[in-house]
Amino acid sequence: MEQELFIGIDIGGTNTRIALIDDSGRILLVRKVPTEIGLGTPQVSRRLAAECRSLMDAAAGFFGRVVAVGLGAAGRIDAARGMVVFSPNLPSMRDYPLAAELEKNLAIPVVLENDANVYGIGESWVGSGKDIENWIGLTLGTGVGGCLILGKRIWQGDGAGFAGEIGHMTIHPEGPACACGSKGCLETFSSGRALKEGVAAAIAAGTLREGPLYESWKNGSLTPETVYRAATEGNALAQALFDRMGRALGIALASLFNVLGIRHAIIGGGVSASWDRFIGPLRESLARHSGMFDPKEVSVVRSALGDDAALLGAGELARRAARESRRQ
Amino acid sequence: MEQELFIGIDIGGTNTRIALIDDSGRILLVRKVPTEIGLGTPQVSRRLAAECRSLMDAAAGFFGRVVAVGLGAAGRIDAARGMVVFSPNLPSMRDYPLAAELEKNLAIPVVLENDANVYGIGESWVGSGKDIENWIGLTLGTGVGGCLILGKRIWQGDGAGFAGEIGHMTIHPEGPACACGSKGCLETFSSGRALKEGVAAAIAAGTLREGPLYESWKNGSLTPETVYRAATEGNALAQALFDRMGRALGIALASLFNVLGIRHAIIGGGVSASWDRFIGPLRESLARHSGMFDPKEVSVVRSALGDDAALLGAGELARRAARESRRQ
Repeated sequence: MEQELFIGIDIGGTNTRIALIDDSGRILLVRKVPTEIGLGTPQVSRRLAAECRSLMDAAAGFFGRVVAVGLGAAGRIDAARGMVVFSPNLPSMRDYPLAAELEKNLAIPVVLENDANVYGIGESWVGSGKDIENWIGLTLGTGVGGCLILGKRIWQGDGAGFAGEIGHMTIHPEGPACACGSKGCLETFSSGRALKEGVAAAIAAGTLREGPLYESWKNGSLTPETVYRAATEGNALAQALFDRMGRALGIALASLFNVLGIRHAIIGGGVSASWDRFIGPLRESLARHSGMFDPKEVSVVRSALGDDAALLGAGELARRAARESRRQ
Repeated sequence: MEQELFIGIDIGGTNTRIALIDDSGRILLVRKVPTEIGLGTPQVSRRLAAECRSLMDAAAGFFGRVVAVGLGAAGRIDAARGMVVFSPNLPSMRDYPLAAELEKNLAIPVVLENDANVYGIGESWVGSGKDIENWIGLTLGTGVGGCLILGKRIWQGDGAGFAGEIGHMTIHPEGPACACGSKGCLETFSSGRALKEGVAAAIAAGTLREGPLYESWKNGSLTPETVYRAATEGNALAQALFDRMGRALGIALASLFNVLGIRHAIIGGGVSASWDRFIGPLRESLARHSGMFDPKEVSVVRSALGDDAALLGAGELARRAARESRRQ
């Protein structure tokens, strides 16, 4: 018998990944294309449709048939209406009904979600959140994304499109200015951007004047990975930036554990690869601010799916949409 | 026809209030007895039973019959098992099955909940939360209590007995030491205790040496009301303490609005009577830390029920328990 397959799409800042996923959460095939942020709305939409059609053709090779498509994208997404309200990775799309358009084009259900939420859905399906009822999800990337899984479902709040913005919790009221307009948000301490800005600040203050961090900043090649490498090689500034990252994460998680009365957090995103540099300070800070819970009773673990979490989450979204559409 | 009535009990630090409540949320009769913290477990339990029986007798005067009892108490309450794990107002009771004992004694359903949760249930039933699906509840008293109402129900987290501990969110990592062992918790800025300790600190630092605040501290009569009165009379220290209270509340609510994606908060508790002294700084701080939401789209309002919120919440708990027991 022909198996039902799903397409999961993760629209990233640099690349868009498109995968063929089976019912058990295995990735059968994955393609990577540049996101090409400069493209206009019709081109982006047409290109995504063409990539989907190509995977729909490839499905036959797996004795399968694609029955739905799921997409994850950064930014403000109106999941209920399948709209890109605003996405930094798709700046030409504003209030754009991307899901509806692809659905018309492909004649199968298409659903759209915020990237932090598809991460949560993926980890909940076949990752670290598989057997956990309630948990807090964090993605450490250029910024800090977040989601809440309550009762095994993504918590959507009032449906205003901004639930799970853990990156914008205030950690220190006199902290650095944040892109959101506030001050001392978690994101200003615990993101890839915070690592890079920490290096830039040390250079501006004259305390960093040489070495690999200085050089890579100077030639524009400074990345979170550069800072990670420097920290593992014993660079004190780099480690101090990871200490700060971990401390801020510990404070945020302690506050959320107190408020939500739940005991699990799962951390993913590219910068979570620096786990060994920040998990120690995170756990210390979590214990220091534990308040009403026993720090030994909470668990903070890494994403099990790494880069594939969003892809698989988008696939699971598609799987649910297919089930939904059959019911109607 | 005989109407069904409910008993709601609010076990406070000083007094215990016991009310006869009808099906529409009206308080028909209320009695106040001293909590007498010093009493041993059997006496407390027997006294509560006697008060209930007296109200059960009085019910006939309202052409009614008491069908269930609800209790609210501060501290760690295991609502599912009707246990007082630990309550500062009932220190003799530790891991004590108060609800089961009263139930056996009175032969009608008895349910027990944390005081911040009964506040939330009361406001949700007939108060400011009546028509709101999702909201954040805060009670400003000696400490800061909290609850989350999600989908019109008290959010219980993993059932570990500490959901809604908003008073122990970290507001400033280098803030004052908190009773919970952490530092800079909301409670260290926004509670009655914080007001009193703020006065004591100014006296210790030698910046407050005379006037009504100094005098009332000296003769041991200093209360949050004293500080409120001083602030309304233009005392700068007193107003600074309310500014700090409001700023910290604004930070906590902004963080929670960002994380939960919801837009309503309701503030009660005795110290919320100082509303006009802290709501301005609260709103300013909320706007400054609003991050991903529009501060004009959120609402922060006062409890509509004041002192009666917990009493009515306990009544509503009883009402639900009666419905439940009929279903079985």
